[in-house]
Amino acid sequence: MNPLFAERTKAARRSVIRELLKLTEQPNIISFAGGLPDPDTFPREFLAQVAADEIRNNPGKTLQYTTTEGKLPLREPLSRWFAEDGMEFPPDHIVITSASQQGLDLVAKVFLDPGDVVLVGLPTYIGAIQAFQAMQAKLVGVPLEDDGMDLHALSDAITTARLAGQIPKFIYVVPDFQNPSGITWSEEKRRGLLEIASREDLVVVEDMPYRKLRYVGKPVPPVASLDEEGRVVVLFTFSKTLAAGLRLGALAGPKEIVEKVVTMKQATDLCTSSLTQRLAVRFFQEYDVEGHMRTICAHYRKKRDAMLSALERYMPKDEGISWTKPEGGLFLWVRFPEHLDTEQMLPRAIEHKVAYVIGAPFFVDGKGHNTMRLSFSSATTEQLEEGIRRLGQVVEEELASLRSPQRV
Amino acid sequence: MNPLFAERTKAARRSVIRELLKLTEQPNIISFAGGLPDPDTFPREFLAQVAADEIRNNPGKTLQYTTTEGKLPLREPLSRWFAEDGMEFPPDHIVITSASQQGLDLVAKVFLDPGDVVLVGLPTYIGAIQAFQAMQAKLVGVPLEDDGMDLHALSDAITTARLAGQIPKFIYVVPDFQNPSGITWSEEKRRGLLEIASREDLVVVEDMPYRKLRYVGKPVPPVASLDEEGRVVVLFTFSKTLAAGLRLGALAGPKEIVEKVVTMKQATDLCTSSLTQRLAVRFFQEYDVEGHMRTICAHYRKKRDAMLSALERYMPKDEGISWTKPEGGLFLWVRFPEHLDTEQMLPRAIEHKVAYVIGAPFFVDGKGHNTMRLSFSSATTEQLEEGIRRLGQVVEEELASLRSPQRV
Repeated sequence: MNPLFAERTKAARRSVIRELLKLTEQPNIISFAGGLPDPDTFPREFLAQVAADEIRNNPGKTLQYTTTEGKLPLREPLSRWFAEDGMEFPPDHIVITSASQQGLDLVAKVFLDPGDVVLVGLPTYIGAIQAFQAMQAKLVGVPLEDDGMDLHALSDAITTARLAGQIPKFIYVVPDFQNPSGITWSEEKRRGLLEIASREDLVVVEDMPYRKLRYVGKPVPPVASLDEEGRVVVLFTFSKTLAAGLRLGALAGPKEIVEKVVTMKQATDLCTSSLTQRLAVRFFQEYDVEGHMRTICAHYRKKRDAMLSALERYMPKDEGISWTKPEGGLFLWVRFPEHLDTEQMLPRAIEHKVAYVIGAPFFVDGKGHNTMRLSFSSATTEQLEEGIRRLGQVVEEELASLRSPQRV
Repeated sequence: MNPLFAERTKAARRSVIRELLKLTEQPNIISFAGGLPDPDTFPREFLAQVAADEIRNNPGKTLQYTTTEGKLPLREPLSRWFAEDGMEFPPDHIVITSASQQGLDLVAKVFLDPGDVVLVGLPTYIGAIQAFQAMQAKLVGVPLEDDGMDLHALSDAITTARLAGQIPKFIYVVPDFQNPSGITWSEEKRRGLLEIASREDLVVVEDMPYRKLRYVGKPVPPVASLDEEGRVVVLFTFSKTLAAGLRLGALAGPKEIVEKVVTMKQATDLCTSSLTQRLAVRFFQEYDVEGHMRTICAHYRKKRDAMLSALERYMPKDEGISWTKPEGGLFLWVRFPEHLDTEQMLPRAIEHKVAYVIGAPFFVDGKGHNTMRLSFSSATTEQLEEGIRRLGQVVEEELASLRSPQRV
């Protein structure tokens, strides 16, 4: 069959992370590798009740096809939710998607011809890399600083691409508690991003899977709320705020773009599940959504604090080791000295019954071998303590072995 | 934003049918236009009970992410179901999809570079046209005869494409009760199709959304069951057999292709809803699936019989009007004299409070203006009788007006 495959298929690789995750699924391993939300945060009793009620009493709206745009009674509260956060998207500027991975697929389809350039962070979310590469985009990495992308490097990268005859289409950002780094952009950099997008006539794709998960500090306005030209497309997901298994999210943006997204979605899956949409409709109608968000945030905050506190105590601090202190989300990011390779260290970690995700796959420039992502979402606070203690041990041993002459 | 859109987006059009459907949604119109399954066929009490039970007692499997391939306890009974029908696909040759529209999107992504040729029926399913065109394929139409594609025309079309320097990749067929025509392929033609695919080294994409909905006659073996070379990809959906709103289906095929499909699905939506998958798992575990299929078939058979009987009585039989007598599925197909244009006739039908789908959008060669699709799935037997009576009247008036000198 090989000669019949499309070019995109020949090049496509499965996520290295998913393959490595299999390694970490052994018993007794404390894993910081997965990025899964904690199922304890899903309002299961509520969902169980409304699922039965909806299917039994509202089968025409739950078991039958629905519109490609998605159910209006879901787009309406989403529109209000966005507005509370400063984003003005009327319901007809919103499309319900099969979670934000489908949002990524749809923006890729709408904007990307083979060879078109997408600007992404170094590091950036792997699912975005896969979606954009599936449409054969050229991904250009821009270094992430503590407060967002290096905007000079962003400008330069766009100029360089244009000089090489390439066509930049959009800048992909996760401005709040980014996966994988945990970094949040400053308002200044968000405004700077929009200035560059305006000057260069580019779209900004603002992915906000974690925005509602802020544990400390004050929210920074979404890029979309600062946009006066209609060039920001927002991707939202219910995976971290309601339940990941529903596969439910939304894409919001300027009407002209949203119309094209709907056309592409029609060809992609006709519509997102009526049943899961109705569960989210009821969630907005009847559940204490704001209270639920506070509960989730308090839940994850404890875990984040436990991981940060354990890192302070157990991670060797010499040799230029540093990590981010995310104000929300599910991840933090550890940087090691150049000569420590986290992929080479992984077997040692597995031996010590602790797992992490290697950083390199998040970098489109082939670097990042000395970084790792740690997720604090699934482990208990006891596991967080013990796991980081083990990890500190692993790093110490690895650094010692790198210093020892046998290794050379 | 227009200059930023991809080439595929500039060319993409929404389904004409969906736009026309809006016309038909006026009160008192008897509509044969929609292709929706009858919600009465969905086992709603069962689904309501298991949904509540699964969410309450099995939240880790229903509310959390699942694997891209889909749940094994769903792929296993599907594998057995396929085997009962002569198709040998072990569970690891099966991927759970977000219904068969996603199957179409995934095969398009896996196989199609811009300009690649896909052979399709004249007429063919519009969702397939949209999915293949989204990957910028060139669709080449092959006339459908009463027992399947004209295989000589198929061979010729492949040869012509190759001579023009184009690359044919696959032949797309719906061999059982095709949407829109209702036609079922003979076993002879199915074997002939495989011979051509083998000789030309092409893949066959066998879409079987209606296969389980046979009301009369003996099942013809699926193309995949006759395939000895591993070149058939099967698309299945639960939309007509369980519930359309779940957005659940499956793709089965040779391992090499399925692996690529999984890679593409990862980039497309990570996974299909865990919740809806679990409902189907329970459906296979606990429901009387075969009894359910018999009930559905008996239900639709009555409707089909009512429509066919009404057509016999009310449709003018002169002037070369003919229609198909499908042995299953949801649709039949009416052909009118060349000078009758069903799109031009539509306002007259709406006036008479009856609706159908015009045939032309199902033809990739720009023809079919004198055809229409009638769905018997949603109307009651009384509505079927009355609606066809009205339609007969509409056709008579239209033919009369076409004969009258005023119109010239």
